[in-house]
Amino acid sequence: MPSIAAPQTLISEVGPRDGLQSVKATMPTADKLRWIDALVAAGLREIEVASFVPPRLLPQMADAAEVVRQTVARHPGITVMALVPNLRGAEAAIVAGAHKLTLPVSASHAHSLANVRCTPDEMVETLRAICRLRDDTAPSVAVEAGISTAFGCTLQGVVEEDEVIRIAVACAEAGAGDVGLSDTTGMANPAQVRRLFTRLRAELGDKAGAAHMHNTRGLGLANCLAAWDVGVRTFDSSLAGLGGCPYAPGASGNVVTEDLVFMFEAMGVRTGVDLDRLIAARGPLADGLPGEPLYGMVANLGQVA
Amino acid sequence: MPSIAAPQTLISEVGPRDGLQSVKATMPTADKLRWIDALVAAGLREIEVASFVPPRLLPQMADAAEVVRQTVARHPGITVMALVPNLRGAEAAIVAGAHKLTLPVSASHAHSLANVRCTPDEMVETLRAICRLRDDTAPSVAVEAGISTAFGCTLQGVVEEDEVIRIAVACAEAGAGDVGLSDTTGMANPAQVRRLFTRLRAELGDKAGAAHMHNTRGLGLANCLAAWDVGVRTFDSSLAGLGGCPYAPGASGNVVTEDLVFMFEAMGVRTGVDLDRLIAARGPLADGLPGEPLYGMVANLGQVA
Repeated sequence: MPSIAAPQTLISEVGPRDGLQSVKATMPTADKLRWIDALVAAGLREIEVASFVPPRLLPQMADAAEVVRQTVARHPGITVMALVPNLRGAEAAIVAGAHKLTLPVSASHAHSLANVRCTPDEMVETLRAICRLRDDTAPSVAVEAGISTAFGCTLQGVVEEDEVIRIAVACAEAGAGDVGLSDTTGMANPAQVRRLFTRLRAELGDKAGAAHMHNTRGLGLANCLAAWDVGVRTFDSSLAGLGGCPYAPGASGNVVTEDLVFMFEAMGVRTGVDLDRLIAARGPLADGLPGEPLYGMVANLGQVA
Repeated sequence: MPSIAAPQTLISEVGPRDGLQSVKATMPTADKLRWIDALVAAGLREIEVASFVPPRLLPQMADAAEVVRQTVARHPGITVMALVPNLRGAEAAIVAGAHKLTLPVSASHAHSLANVRCTPDEMVETLRAICRLRDDTAPSVAVEAGISTAFGCTLQGVVEEDEVIRIAVACAEAGAGDVGLSDTTGMANPAQVRRLFTRLRAELGDKAGAAHMHNTRGLGLANCLAAWDVGVRTFDSSLAGLGGCPYAPGASGNVVTEDLVFMFEAMGVRTGVDLDRLIAARGPLADGLPGEPLYGMVANLGQVA
């Protein structure tokens, strides 16, 4: 194993946004902050803490501005991310002090229309407007685009790889600092992951961003490994796999952060995350969401090699 | 995806041996045979159906000879494998008509002494005696060695890679037609899998055998992918992950055949296995082992992309 201390990969924790957004219960703000404290204590350096969507759509995120403000104040040095679905959300996230905004841009027309009622290309224009706003009001804020349904769509089926790359390139041209690919529906396979991220890197170079994999069919870690193999160095995941898939008993939606960290560290790839403290962070999560199932092979095994 | 019809990888089903050996219940012979029928109907071409150990140690395997005989008679064209722990077991397996014998040889001294009360090198001598018996009495029977605890041992901790390779080479020299590596304790990681199988292939060439991975820490499929990447083309797995790890809720011991087949087929790697029929084979398994948990992300999702 290499003896260097600097992390070689970035685990971007999405539980407080992506995870909470998928569960019915609303976690009180104080519980969210305790959970985020524990995530930071475990060594996570980038955390997606909130989504700036209308509270009538997602009451779980009604405290988004407060969570961003508090996290920024409590944890200097980490990157506080927020999902923004539109320009209004971006304004609010910037005002709250978010360091990085992430905008989901679906590569599937059907998914885009169903989800945000506009086409992928219209979302690219939204991204462009957000980047202009950022340039004008908060130039230090980073903007990321996450290409959702990049590996398949339950609504339209196959998503053409050419179309995924076309949208990704358009996002970079619109001003995104990095563009990641999301397996929103858990349909990716390792061969496809390698093909698409290889193309993404060829097109975007350093602007090629995170792999956001799901574990719906059990391939989450294999797909992360495949992405790592072709040079991806940022991985989205969720503590305890929060964001579970309701129609698959025992299945988690998001890749489990604990298992992902275990895999990389076992391989000798430094993540900067302390696995014991990470597993301990399940405590505050469970306290804030009583009864919610917590996934994860390593944590449930209770035995870390 | 390639359009060729011939399978590009061999899934070696171990459930009727490895799986049943790990559960407390004893499956009646007729149920075993119905389950094996269903596995063959799904397209599996190599099945480890029994272990020739003393019935007082493993009552689940008391019908080993009968299961081998019946499977050979019912399913011409498939390879019927049997685990044999010693020369006496090999004799019985050959008499019953097994096409292939597999002998576990532990790379960990501590595990070997605890498990079979002899050292790894003494097991290599047993293998040599088995190969001589085979040469003298049944030259068409194949003999495989499976190097257990190749990736770590819960008793002795680290297992030196040099020692794993030394034992593997000794097994090939003793007459094994192929030598696989087993992650008996579920401690393997993808980097280690690539290193060890690369060395194994460099030393043994075509005699480098199967990857037998466990999913104890969730890395089962990632480790299979890693092995595939460095040229492994035979993978052991178990329908429904039978052979579950009792101390890990939701964890399966063996890699789940359904998920493994799904991964390869999704990648465009032909397995020769029909996933729908494979999932249907869980029916006879459940009938023969009422109440036993069945693992598997794809099957439990009930939706095969």
